[in-house]
Amino acid sequence: MHAVSAFAPATVANVGVGFDVLGLAIDGPGDTVTAYRSDTPGVRIRRVTGGDLPLEAERNTAGVAAISTLRLAGVDVGVELELHKGLPIGSGLGSSSSSAAAAAFAVNLLLGSPLRKAQLIEPCMDAEEAVSGRHADNVAPSLLGGLILVRSTDPLDIVRLPIPEGLTVAVVTPDFVLTTKAARAALPASISLATMVRQTANIAGLVSACYTGDLDLLARCIPETVVTPVRAQLIPGGSAAIEAALEAGALGASVSGAGPSIFALCRSVASAQAAATAMQAAFTRAGLASTRVVSPADAPGARRVDLPA
Amino acid sequence: MHAVSAFAPATVANVGVGFDVLGLAIDGPGDTVTAYRSDTPGVRIRRVTGGDLPLEAERNTAGVAAISTLRLAGVDVGVELELHKGLPIGSGLGSSSSSAAAAAFAVNLLLGSPLRKAQLIEPCMDAEEAVSGRHADNVAPSLLGGLILVRSTDPLDIVRLPIPEGLTVAVVTPDFVLTTKAARAALPASISLATMVRQTANIAGLVSACYTGDLDLLARCIPETVVTPVRAQLIPGGSAAIEAALEAGALGASVSGAGPSIFALCRSVASAQAAATAMQAAFTRAGLASTRVVSPADAPGARRVDLPA
Repeated sequence: MHAVSAFAPATVANVGVGFDVLGLAIDGPGDTVTAYRSDTPGVRIRRVTGGDLPLEAERNTAGVAAISTLRLAGVDVGVELELHKGLPIGSGLGSSSSSAAAAAFAVNLLLGSPLRKAQLIEPCMDAEEAVSGRHADNVAPSLLGGLILVRSTDPLDIVRLPIPEGLTVAVVTPDFVLTTKAARAALPASISLATMVRQTANIAGLVSACYTGDLDLLARCIPETVVTPVRAQLIPGGSAAIEAALEAGALGASVSGAGPSIFALCRSVASAQAAATAMQAAFTRAGLASTRVVSPADAPGARRVDLPA
Repeated sequence: MHAVSAFAPATVANVGVGFDVLGLAIDGPGDTVTAYRSDTPGVRIRRVTGGDLPLEAERNTAGVAAISTLRLAGVDVGVELELHKGLPIGSGLGSSSSSAAAAAFAVNLLLGSPLRKAQLIEPCMDAEEAVSGRHADNVAPSLLGGLILVRSTDPLDIVRLPIPEGLTVAVVTPDFVLTTKAARAALPASISLATMVRQTANIAGLVSACYTGDLDLLARCIPETVVTPVRAQLIPGGSAAIEAALEAGALGASVSGAGPSIFALCRSVASAQAAATAMQAAFTRAGLASTRVVSPADAPGARRVDLPA
């Protein structure tokens, strides 16, 4: 194979109570990587469209994921990449992870798929480590789709959770830059034992609700008091958007990843559209333009797409 | 009805990673309460056998649970109780909860069962509050049986978790007194955010494993680093017993409730017997005699039994 393109979707990490351990794919925005065989060994990035990112492979998550995928496959060939950013950088939708997942998936296809999809998580974590931290809560769902529990990153241990029928996610991204670094710096260093108990109780209930489809239980489990409030405060209109989604009938709403995007889990597409409208209105009141995505909560992960025309 | 007897089983709270939120019933030891109608309103305790507990109803969890059950049922009748302790006090097996559950269940039967079983949790929590703290992780499984997630105590929100087929619990109780107060005092006041992430990841995995029957995942999720190590240190041979159970093939082992009992979750009755033997040997090496119980992990909860002869 000489050239192949792959798409990897945006993702909502944390999902409320699952700080650093839960993530889900969304259907819509995402990054596309086209990988070309080259006679010169090593990985080069030909160009990046749709966003301003470094072309040096070692400083770009697509490049790092490609290098690490080649290493894991034990293949020493030349690969050139074209990256098309289809989602905004620093939006809390796992932008760097989508680039990594698309690149790893494309390079693996280019090699004739020597690695299984789940094996691509490690190369993508290498990419995440190069730009932020070694996390899998965005790369795992971007690769695999659906709702993924990252039980451990070292050793890697992931669990696919079932998604209740009809569950729909609304994501609203305000036109506001919040760096992951700033969002991480705002987190408390420690929490009380009582808070730990509440967090473990809620994530346990959330997982149960995924298996049983008990959406009322799911709704009771999403509110989170450690990460969400401090991050929502960093986003103009963030807390108001969460409140607005709940008032519009969402099961739960919280900050997507490090923000500034806000997501809401809803019973239906209609409910998710209503929640998105309410969230966008809240951002408008805060003086921010925004965009929306409404997606099934069980969205597909990375996949092959047609080569660019 | 003039008199009725009820039995409520011992319970293993925390179950490793579920500090204050998980508990399971075990089949074997437990408390029995016989409730008699009386012409004199109020609750009196006629006698307590099998253990040294106060006869004042307000200072005995059986008495408090009975008072609170009458109040919840809106019935102002006289009740006299006989409590037979069938499990040791201060063993980490929910002794006070078993008394409360048996009393609440017996009194409700005496009244013609105006309340559902799950409604008896609140009166039993009143009883727990009178002697230690308002917890449901022992009383809920003692009443309902099986493995119960206490998502919240206020408002009460409990979830029954399914139990993988064949899962068996071994419990070994050393002849050593560890008060709940001392066990609570040893707990850290706060934990790091990284520890919170590990705890939430593990309980999420544990709940998933309950639904899917993935015992290998379950085994990976039981180890706990906040509560178990500090409590195991307070028990001579405690850490050694946990290690011994794992070496004998247990899926996981930890401190039962506030201790000093140690439990192990195992794939089969044979494995649980081997784990119990190994744990007892560890306690013997520490100079402590011990007793054992091997029970299905899906043991029944409170139930009516024959009146004492």
